[in-house]
Amino acid sequence: MHTLGELARILDAELVGGDANQPVDGMGTIQSATATQMTFLANPRYRSYLEQTRAAVVLLQEDQREFCPVPALIVKDPYLSFAKASALFEVAPQAQPGIHPAAVVADSAVVAATASIGPNAVIDADAQIGEGAVVMANAVIGAGSIIGENCRIWPNVTIYHGVTVGPRTIIHANSVLGADGFGFAFNGAGWTKVHQVGGVRIGADVEIGAGTTIDRGAIDDTVIGNGAILDNQIQVAHNVIIGDHTALAGKVGIAGSSKIGSYCLLGGAVGVSGHIEICDKVQVLGMTLVSSSITKPGTYGSALPADEQRRYQKNVARFRNLDDLARRVRKLERLSD
Amino acid sequence: MHTLGELARILDAELVGGDANQPVDGMGTIQSATATQMTFLANPRYRSYLEQTRAAVVLLQEDQREFCPVPALIVKDPYLSFAKASALFEVAPQAQPGIHPAAVVADSAVVAATASIGPNAVIDADAQIGEGAVVMANAVIGAGSIIGENCRIWPNVTIYHGVTVGPRTIIHANSVLGADGFGFAFNGAGWTKVHQVGGVRIGADVEIGAGTTIDRGAIDDTVIGNGAILDNQIQVAHNVIIGDHTALAGKVGIAGSSKIGSYCLLGGAVGVSGHIEICDKVQVLGMTLVSSSITKPGTYGSALPADEQRRYQKNVARFRNLDDLARRVRKLERLSD
Amino acid sequence: MHTLGELARILDAELVGGDANQPVDGMGTIQSATATQMTFLANPRYRSYLEQTRAAVVLLQEDQREFCPVPALIVKDPYLSFAKASALFEVAPQAQPGIHPAAVVADSAVVAATASIGPNAVIDADAQIGEGAVVMANAVIGAGSIIGENCRIWPNVTIYHGVTVGPRTIIHANSVLGADGFGFAFNGAGWTKVHQVGGVRIGADVEIGAGTTIDRGAIDDTVIGNGAILDNQIQVAHNVIIGDHTALAGKVGIAGSSKIGSYCLLGGAVGVSGHIEICDKVQVLGMTLVSSSITKPGTYGSALPADEQRRYQKNVARFRNLDDLARRVRKLERLSD
Repeated sequence: MHTLGELARILDAELVGGDANQPVDGMGTIQSATATQMTFLANPRYRSYLEQTRAAVVLLQEDQREFCPVPALIVKDPYLSFAKASALFEVAPQAQPGIHPAAVVADSAVVAATASIGPNAVIDADAQIGEGAVVMANAVIGAGSIIGENCRIWPNVTIYHGVTVGPRTIIHANSVLGADGFGFAFNGAGWTKVHQVGGVRIGADVEIGAGTTIDRGAIDDTVIGNGAILDNQIQVAHNVIIGDHTALAGKVGIAGSSKIGSYCLLGGAVGVSGHIEICDKVQVLGMTLVSSSITKPGTYGSALPADEQRRYQKNVARFRNLDDLARRVRKLERLSD
Repeated sequence: MHTLGELARILDAELVGGDANQPVDGMGTIQSATATQMTFLANPRYRSYLEQTRAAVVLLQEDQREFCPVPALIVKDPYLSFAKASALFEVAPQAQPGIHPAAVVADSAVVAATASIGPNAVIDADAQIGEGAVVMANAVIGAGSIIGENCRIWPNVTIYHGVTVGPRTIIHANSVLGADGFGFAFNGAGWTKVHQVGGVRIGADVEIGAGTTIDRGAIDDTVIGNGAILDNQIQVAHNVIIGDHTALAGKVGIAGSSKIGSYCLLGGAVGVSGHIEICDKVQVLGMTLVSSSITKPGTYGSALPADEQRRYQKNVARFRNLDDLARRVRKLERLSD
Repeated sequence: MHTLGELARILDAELVGGDANQPVDGMGTIQSATATQMTFLANPRYRSYLEQTRAAVVLLQEDQREFCPVPALIVKDPYLSFAKASALFEVAPQAQPGIHPAAVVADSAVVAATASIGPNAVIDADAQIGEGAVVMANAVIGAGSIIGENCRIWPNVTIYHGVTVGPRTIIHANSVLGADGFGFAFNGAGWTKVHQVGGVRIGADVEIGAGTTIDRGAIDDTVIGNGAILDNQIQVAHNVIIGDHTALAGKVGIAGSSKIGSYCLLGGAVGVSGHIEICDKVQVLGMTLVSSSITKPGTYGSALPADEQRRYQKNVARFRNLDDLARRVRKLERLSD
């Protein structure tokens, strides 16, 4: 429970038309917010919703103030202010410091006094769990791995040996850090495994979604930069390097040894081939294949969008003969010269 | 063990050419079924197999009756009847009611008397597990979440706090319900997390495959309709709404706030962009990108099919200049006017 | 710790320019290797790195010998020799034989004396764990499933009932073997489940990555051949058959009942439709859709590569009218006859 006055102070906002003592106990959308919930208007196209909102308070820009029928908090970037305020209304349960009696912690592991180790979590030999870190139920932390201060490791996460996770990083459920990279040498009859002796280094303030896998390096480490955000079901192969503050949407796959710059945005299910580089500030649209290096900031795409089956199939058939079509056009051009 | 007579009664079928007391102890394909196994013929193209089958009994349509060398059960829809009968021969082990001594159940959790909680499962504070529900080994049910009657939660599933699962729903191993949606506001230097305070609501009679992730809503809930069926490794982002009886094949990804209608069929690895709508009864072919709303029932596609490398590479090179080719054709048309 | 002499003997290599007693304690890249680490030169293009390496010893071919400033081990295939040597420097912790007190093993399960069962692992009724096999923390082995000798099952893996895993196979964390295939019959109003009574058979010397799912068969088994290697987040649907020594890169998806030959290489995120066959020795490039059978060995592709947004969008718009463009070219050809 927070008051409008507290919100104004925390967000460095001007409170308009409201009582500073009025309580706010949650968040809602501009359509659904109740009289005790905060909401925001980021997109002026939703002004009609603003005019009908019943929220306790709306975060909005100065120029929308006149259209707001309820108290408003005037800010420069309503969505960013909303993000800041959202931490006040988090619904995830608080973890209790201490080691649950059903956890299994190796004698040589070092667990900070304020850390929380959940039931059936397993902390292997020589692992280190930092102050305020939370390792939730049934998660496994491998031998010698280091979990930084105030990290949160959700249930059923598996962290192998030799993985380092920076402070305040969040790893969602059932993700896997440090499994063997996919390294094999063909021996004429089959595959000889290249044992993967590198590790994984995750920066500070990273968020990793559920069901994401980040392999250990073959020799050197796989590296995720500070402040990077990774969605669910992402695959990061061995020796990939991802720059600071880069955002990867769900189902992105990055093959071995590729390097992604800082402040990049990769859309859903983008695939990046191995051994290439993407420079800083590159945006890639969803389902694109990046098969060669990108050296110039900008936006890139490759996926064809859905079409009605009949037209789709006709066009696909033509695509299979596109080279032939181009040759025929060249021939016509020669004739017309 | 069931008899032909029992099967005829359960399936409302006519038994032809067999002894009602003959026992059936399992299922086989029309090629592999043994003399004590049931099979079916759904596709008339397999009639040659029918003529050679050694099955105990074949589920088939009236018009195939004359070609069946063994007892037959005459039904309207053999595959559907086979589906109904398959429940009789399920090989999954029955769960025993009760809480395994190695499970960890919070004092405030409510577990029905006929529910089964497996070893090392963790049931957090205020969670509710319905009558006949089965939570298997090493699964985790978060604080306040509700698992309906006769649900089955397979091992290593993670259900976060604030998730509701309707009755008779099946969730396969290592799936994750309720992880944080991918919501962040750019703050000029990096990303500020938008805390995700919505929940997840899963309908009744839903089946969710292994390794699937369904994120909690940012503010409102993420919703999966009644009778929807989701295969493995599907990603459902925050605030997605999926209609009743819609089927999603493996590896489908749906970005945030999109709405899929009822009775839709999305093929493998289909990608759906965020903030769009797909109406009822839409079928999307595998690996298609749906990047804008679909308002008309029908079948849609976009993926190019495999071709031999040489032709593929030539056509790809031509595609990169397709706009130029079209302009050249336009020029030729003008010349020929 | 191994000496150059031991390495030469194990790899059947000629030691050049070094002391056979010199110790080697690890592996490095040709750029990063220290004076006590082994490295290799597989690609002659990296000769400049060779000339500056500080490694203890370099695995290389005869023709690179003269450019090596440090001791060398002369071999025919440096990468394969490096793979063999890498086993000597594995960093994964050794498992201790025996059943951890926090494991839960059913009375009817059979665990070999030299097997290792980790904390909170669950071994269900009638399961069998072979000699030297390792089932790590929080993994679950279902009723009646068989884990071969010297297998390694990493944490949080779920193996359902009725799954057989051949000897020396490695299954990485959070993978799922034996979940129900996606089988449903439409009943006019919704979906009737086809209970999946087949199993999964994994061959010998297989490696399966993290977060991979391999469904049980509907009636017959799903089969992975000997020596096959599967990367992370692969989806193998029910009744798929994968040949010996085939390699599947990350995020490959294979729909139901398809058959992949031996010695195939499927690139990242390749999708294979259901009920088709791919013959032996087929290579498929990343993100390709294989929607019909391939009967001829060779290399196949279909994905378009990334382009700058403006050009990409123009070409996409032209693709939507490609059939029309082809018709217009045909008309011009007729005019020019």
